[in-house]
Amino acid sequence: MSDPVVDHLLARQSDILADLKALLRMPSVSADPAFAQGMADARAFLADRLTAIGMENVQLLDGGGHPAVYGDWLHAPGKPTLLIYGHYDVQPADPLDQWTTPPFEPTERDGKLYARGASDVKGSTLIAIESVASLLAVEAACPVNVKFFLEGEEETGSPSLRPLIARYRALLEADAVLSADGGRASREVETINTGARGTNKMEFTLRTAAGDLHSGRYGGAVRNALHEMAALIASLHDREGRVAVAGFDADAAPLTNQQRADTAAFPFDESAFLAEVRASGHGGPEFTMRERITLRPCLDVNGMWGGYIGAGSKTIIPAEAHAKISIRLAAGQDPKRALDAVVAHLEAHCPDGVNLTVDRAGGDSPASTLAPEHPLVLAAERVLKGGTGQRPIHVRLGASVPITSIFKETMGMDTLMFGFNLPDEPVHAPNEFFRLESIPKGLTAWPKILRELATFEPAAFKA
Amino acid sequence: MSDPVVDHLLARQSDILADLKALLRMPSVSADPAFAQGMADARAFLADRLTAIGMENVQLLDGGGHPAVYGDWLHAPGKPTLLIYGHYDVQPADPLDQWTTPPFEPTERDGKLYARGASDVKGSTLIAIESVASLLAVEAACPVNVKFFLEGEEETGSPSLRPLIARYRALLEADAVLSADGGRASREVETINTGARGTNKMEFTLRTAAGDLHSGRYGGAVRNALHEMAALIASLHDREGRVAVAGFDADAAPLTNQQRADTAAFPFDESAFLAEVRASGHGGPEFTMRERITLRPCLDVNGMWGGYIGAGSKTIIPAEAHAKISIRLAAGQDPKRALDAVVAHLEAHCPDGVNLTVDRAGGDSPASTLAPEHPLVLAAERVLKGGTGQRPIHVRLGASVPITSIFKETMGMDTLMFGFNLPDEPVHAPNEFFRLESIPKGLTAWPKILRELATFEPAAFKA
Repeated sequence: MSDPVVDHLLARQSDILADLKALLRMPSVSADPAFAQGMADARAFLADRLTAIGMENVQLLDGGGHPAVYGDWLHAPGKPTLLIYGHYDVQPADPLDQWTTPPFEPTERDGKLYARGASDVKGSTLIAIESVASLLAVEAACPVNVKFFLEGEEETGSPSLRPLIARYRALLEADAVLSADGGRASREVETINTGARGTNKMEFTLRTAAGDLHSGRYGGAVRNALHEMAALIASLHDREGRVAVAGFDADAAPLTNQQRADTAAFPFDESAFLAEVRASGHGGPEFTMRERITLRPCLDVNGMWGGYIGAGSKTIIPAEAHAKISIRLAAGQDPKRALDAVVAHLEAHCPDGVNLTVDRAGGDSPASTLAPEHPLVLAAERVLKGGTGQRPIHVRLGASVPITSIFKETMGMDTLMFGFNLPDEPVHAPNEFFRLESIPKGLTAWPKILRELATFEPAAFKA
Repeated sequence: MSDPVVDHLLARQSDILADLKALLRMPSVSADPAFAQGMADARAFLADRLTAIGMENVQLLDGGGHPAVYGDWLHAPGKPTLLIYGHYDVQPADPLDQWTTPPFEPTERDGKLYARGASDVKGSTLIAIESVASLLAVEAACPVNVKFFLEGEEETGSPSLRPLIARYRALLEADAVLSADGGRASREVETINTGARGTNKMEFTLRTAAGDLHSGRYGGAVRNALHEMAALIASLHDREGRVAVAGFDADAAPLTNQQRADTAAFPFDESAFLAEVRASGHGGPEFTMRERITLRPCLDVNGMWGGYIGAGSKTIIPAEAHAKISIRLAAGQDPKRALDAVVAHLEAHCPDGVNLTVDRAGGDSPASTLAPEHPLVLAAERVLKGGTGQRPIHVRLGASVPITSIFKETMGMDTLMFGFNLPDEPVHAPNEFFRLESIPKGLTAWPKILRELATFEPAAFKA
């Protein structure tokens, strides 16, 4: 059954590719002030395009850093309102000498479009914009209300997103977020991301004496802060790599049969996963590796230091040791309670005579979860099933997605990641590329998901 | 029974103190090139004094760094030759604002002479020189042959001592070394130092992956280099603080009854020892704390680091971890074999999938030991017993004494430390002082020990 909007989009493919290349030539590196012009060019390009396709209230939203580009079309009364998220900033391109072709000269090679930002996320951002464009061009209407929100600070950790939301809260209000960033977990099967792990972190210090002591004078008589730190850190996991902190995963939702089946169905080669980074597997056999990195909590020491760490040697008994710890959380876990369990473990295992101080760094977020019956999930299922007839596999991300957490926390909006980039595209590295085949794939899916979303009551998104 | 040489010395006390103050006014800080003049002044002062008292061949010995001051008197045929060791360089005086009176303005206060270098070791060095001076002045002869060797780099770790010895080997040849640096372990009892612990050290690295991994993507699936490092370090000691490395102390000489009795007789307040530095005791009850820090080997991690150690957080799974380890060795232990045991332990406890590389830093030395019947010990016993009638307590140092090790290793010479400074004099800190009472005490003892040493055959010193 032919779809005139999709036909229109596919007919416009070469224009859309030309536009994408124009956008990719603008070096919009948010981390480096030297690229201010590239940032301004990309903003102007997107604002112009939003205006051209019929968006209203097109403007820059200033949260104190690089502004976001905004534009809306709100003429679908009674229909859901979707905040369409993308970002126009890109990672720095260094090291430049490792690029086969220059990062800001988009180049097609072997079915791939090479350029900084092609995959992350100018390609998918433009797919979203052009899908709305064709809906408006062909049908003179969009099935849902849309608000484009194109961020300029995603690659620097969205430092001014919270103040920006606080300032423009009314403008950004929507029933849910549809993100052009992230979502596809495999090229082999269709997937729907239904959540991400939460996170929390802390730093702690051990002190065993007033200052470092001379090992000739005290060696054999006193506690060494590094020995104590080692024993404490070692006690956090068992020998098979399981977290050994009492109560740590007490609140973690048990895996459902469907989750385990989805995870098993997902194509995942454990050996290749480890071999790619020359890592050594660890964790205990009661969960598969894929379950452990997406559905289960974990705890990692991210940094540890103490004593003399310069060149040569210094025969001291260090009096102070430090460690940074982060945890990843499963659905159901309260970030504070999980960290409390870690702190309680450290306190319980810290011997007399060793002073423990804990600094909770803050910045915690719970795991995010889209329930299987959430309109965002149901809509995505209908769209993605269309391609193969197979039910898309539900996957969760092992990492946290700050944007998603912030939208949920500040405005109660759930996010569906519906980008068309793939996880094997080297997004923060040299020779970033976006598969050309993903462009028609995205242009086919985006009008459909907007139509599917239109079939739900607005209230259903936050139910 | 009056001793004319000692009488002469005690009569000259105020002149000697004036000379000491003059020497202390010269800021001979070897670590800082800004003090080159102070170094040159101190050298000239000592060379002039050696010449004045009748030393011959007075000269500067250049090993490539700060030269040493040398002078000899070799007119006691058939008698032993003693290399009298002292040093004219001092520690930097920083932090200056913590000195009650300026570091290079020697000031008497409450029976103490405050100045940088007063205790370490200009005071004892001058006692040695003036003792020989009075022997020559009163008796026109010294009971033994003497070679003064006054180093200028002790406080910077004697970097050019080995090349200096190689160049001036014939000049420095002697039967034994009598050191004006170190020796007294207590103000309450007379002690003789009969040795010091040996030492060895290493650095090692663990690698668990090609690079740091994102904890969101890999957390729960892979080994973390810091967890592995913690487990390895924790395995080196048991929970009571004993070294848990198989074979580590296999060669350590068992403590003799006399050693245990000496150690028990030595006034040592465990609680005060720990409380002074706010440390927490550790080690196991089968040896006393004093035995553990002087007679038993130990192992300390001196530095440990890996992962992200800057401000804030970085949610990585570190792929590399580092540690520096030093060991202190008891008499009988071979430094290489003891370190071999540590390396073997690390290898045995390092799991598959974790790459261990060991860097033996070098600079090892075995424990030094003066046998109870060594002429240096017997001579010191006779001199120090004279004061109280009590047998001096034999003690060993927990630290290594590089000078002693170097003289033993390069020239086969044993060293008796016969300085009159005390361990509670803050030698590397602000407000260094030397007790004024130690001056007559030293001036009384030095002529006596030279006479006692003269009663031994030269060959007995290296027997």
